[in-house]
Amino acid sequence: MSSAESIAKDANAAFSQLKTLTNEERLLALVKVHDALEAGRDEIVRANRVDLQNATDRKLAESLIKRLDLSLGDKFSSMLQGILDVANLADPVGKITLARKLDEGLNLYRVTAPIGVLLIIFESRPEVIANITALAIKSGNAAILKGGKESFQTFKAMSEIVTRALSENTNVPGKAIQLIESREEVGDLLLQDKYIDLVIPRGSNELVRNIKLNTRIPVLGHADGICSIYVDDECDLTKAKRVIVDSKTNYPAGCNAAEQLLINSHLSDADIDSLIGVLIASGVTVHVTPQLKKRLSTELDSAYIKDATDDAFDKEYLLLDILARLVDLAASAISHINEHSSKHTECIVTENKERAEHFLQAIDSAGVYWNCSTRFADGFRYGFGTEVGISTNKIHARGPVGLEGLMSYQYQLKGDGHIASEYCGAGGKKVFVHEDL
Amino acid sequence: MSSAESIAKDANAAFSQLKTLTNEERLLALVKVHDALEAGRDEIVRANRVDLQNATDRKLAESLIKRLDLSLGDKFSSMLQGILDVANLADPVGKITLARKLDEGLNLYRVTAPIGVLLIIFESRPEVIANITALAIKSGNAAILKGGKESFQTFKAMSEIVTRALSENTNVPGKAIQLIESREEVGDLLLQDKYIDLVIPRGSNELVRNIKLNTRIPVLGHADGICSIYVDDECDLTKAKRVIVDSKTNYPAGCNAAEQLLINSHLSDADIDSLIGVLIASGVTVHVTPQLKKRLSTELDSAYIKDATDDAFDKEYLLLDILARLVDLAASAISHINEHSSKHTECIVTENKERAEHFLQAIDSAGVYWNCSTRFADGFRYGFGTEVGISTNKIHARGPVGLEGLMSYQYQLKGDGHIASEYCGAGGKKVFVHEDL
Repeated sequence: MSSAESIAKDANAAFSQLKTLTNEERLLALVKVHDALEAGRDEIVRANRVDLQNATDRKLAESLIKRLDLSLGDKFSSMLQGILDVANLADPVGKITLARKLDEGLNLYRVTAPIGVLLIIFESRPEVIANITALAIKSGNAAILKGGKESFQTFKAMSEIVTRALSENTNVPGKAIQLIESREEVGDLLLQDKYIDLVIPRGSNELVRNIKLNTRIPVLGHADGICSIYVDDECDLTKAKRVIVDSKTNYPAGCNAAEQLLINSHLSDADIDSLIGVLIASGVTVHVTPQLKKRLSTELDSAYIKDATDDAFDKEYLLLDILARLVDLAASAISHINEHSSKHTECIVTENKERAEHFLQAIDSAGVYWNCSTRFADGFRYGFGTEVGISTNKIHARGPVGLEGLMSYQYQLKGDGHIASEYCGAGGKKVFVHEDL
Repeated sequence: MSSAESIAKDANAAFSQLKTLTNEERLLALVKVHDALEAGRDEIVRANRVDLQNATDRKLAESLIKRLDLSLGDKFSSMLQGILDVANLADPVGKITLARKLDEGLNLYRVTAPIGVLLIIFESRPEVIANITALAIKSGNAAILKGGKESFQTFKAMSEIVTRALSENTNVPGKAIQLIESREEVGDLLLQDKYIDLVIPRGSNELVRNIKLNTRIPVLGHADGICSIYVDDECDLTKAKRVIVDSKTNYPAGCNAAEQLLINSHLSDADIDSLIGVLIASGVTVHVTPQLKKRLSTELDSAYIKDATDDAFDKEYLLLDILARLVDLAASAISHINEHSSKHTECIVTENKERAEHFLQAIDSAGVYWNCSTRFADGFRYGFGTEVGISTNKIHARGPVGLEGLMSYQYQLKGDGHIASEYCGAGGKKVFVHEDL
């Protein structure tokens, strides 16, 4: 048995046990993990400094070093608080979502249940360890965590503390949370589809894309976030300008930042200029199609206007860049979006309610917005308490994913010696009652 | 562009349109399809006879020929009735499952929405065409149907009628239901993960297993159905005998038939003999482990007792055969099942409520049953109105899947020029309200 297989098999066995614990037992375990990490703060920070030094020596990007640094601002204490926040969420396990009497004494219940074994692969943010440990234990899922080599020392210090806290003081089996040091090959873990039920990558688009290509296990997440805004000719121009500037510039590296602006061609030249102008004034480079370029005033700062390249309709900039084109109808905007978007979040800016409702129904993306910024696509903003990730998948969880996304369900059927052959359709005469309880 | 790619792309474009139709428009389309198939009955039956003749000439198995024959019993009329039954189900599209005020004038809604494009691959049952057409249109999903070569002529006749009925008389776009003749390669369709969202195989385990190995598109279904029954030492023996005989013999080829019997070793020799005896009396061959064999009386008919082979714990018989072994505890039964089952349906027979509840919580299968036959795991018996399939996946739909399994959801956010940068966490001071509406 390969090392990856035995890790995955152990996780699966631990899951069977974890699955039966009460909310109180899971909550207590998280408090112990919280306390142990708090007590181990100096030790963790020392290890983190070694990682930071290595990163500096290796001249890694400053943004990566920032992500790595656990002492930055209140990062450590918010990490600790995050564990308690998740611990105190409502218990997601065992909620009855359907109760139906099939016949006298034969009752069917659909009950929420954890999915099983999660494989979490993350890059340089060591606080993910605390966050995922909390989410997994709270939801009754076992987790295998695999960090990047940049955070190896921090990871090692934290994982020893978490493992010790769980195994010494709680009913959570030790193998329920396994922290895999970076020497293990992630590729081998991705092959364990017999034992691992869901992969959650936390990192760059490149990481997600690579994982999706190399596993048969379902992956919760998104590679691209190509969000679009359609500005209708019946829009309120002030709202349109607010929404496009915020969607593009509030955090251009976010997956919910706008990458495409579709403008109804029936807007006046002056209105079109003012939409493009406000983006330029915010430092955004606008990549325009030839048709749009012809409509623009020469007064606009040409340093910020570029010709759209051939791949512009399918490109995620993640910078202060946006594609802009004209469309003749809301329907053309819908076609463009359904063909080119990454199914993340799209917005229509219009005062025409009917057109807005049609857009919301016709667009096939996780988020469909009317007159508001695409940047709202986020678990905390939606009030989910915590965020597992944002999914552009179309089955299972979609859009910003809270704890619910880590849950499945099971059908419990309780009888008293009932057998199928006594019922219609299986050889008998009895008829099902099918009465909701 | 390959032919498979253009089929998939067309389906995707048709989906955008289908997604916006009202329940009335979808219902009307199904009535038209029903009427057209009814009017075309003679034509279809003629084509079906050609398929049957070919199957007889090629000496195909009788069971296959039975499945192929649309004139058998009331198969044709129940196929037609099935279309109307699905048409008249409650509209699954557009149900609001969450409504939350994020702030004044900024409201979030989670709304049920179709998944997108389904690829249905089926073997010899031509009535699947009518069934899937109904399910897809009702749920607002586009579908690509690919039948086996045994039913080619029937398929061709039915598909012409369905396509004509849809395109002449309804608002459902013609490409929403595409019936692909068997010359197209299924392998090419399985590569279209950009346009196809879900594959639903309807056929043998072999078919499902092959499809799962050859696509990155999620597959809804099950390859194996290894269901187990654990008979506890605190059971009512009469109930135990009823349940095991029904679970094994009511329809041994069903995926919900029992394949494994786990007996608590604290039961008396006489009780164990009577459990094995009642199976033998029903014509079941019992494959026993050495430990169990030692406990059995020599009075039992040895022709029906075989030594369990090495792979017996992971085997699906689909015949009048069952594996039987002893376990010393309910916990051992749980471990055995969580390791070997196919996550379909498992049952405990006991009068001990606490032990039953623990079993239901600890077992990681779609169905967890107490004192009733595993044969109840079925969409019609659960009262789902229709059945799309039975899923042993652990994400998205699980267990018997009704129309709900073809649905996803979208988040609609309706604002009035709201932007993220005015709120806490994105640079501003405003605080979210997060009040359920």
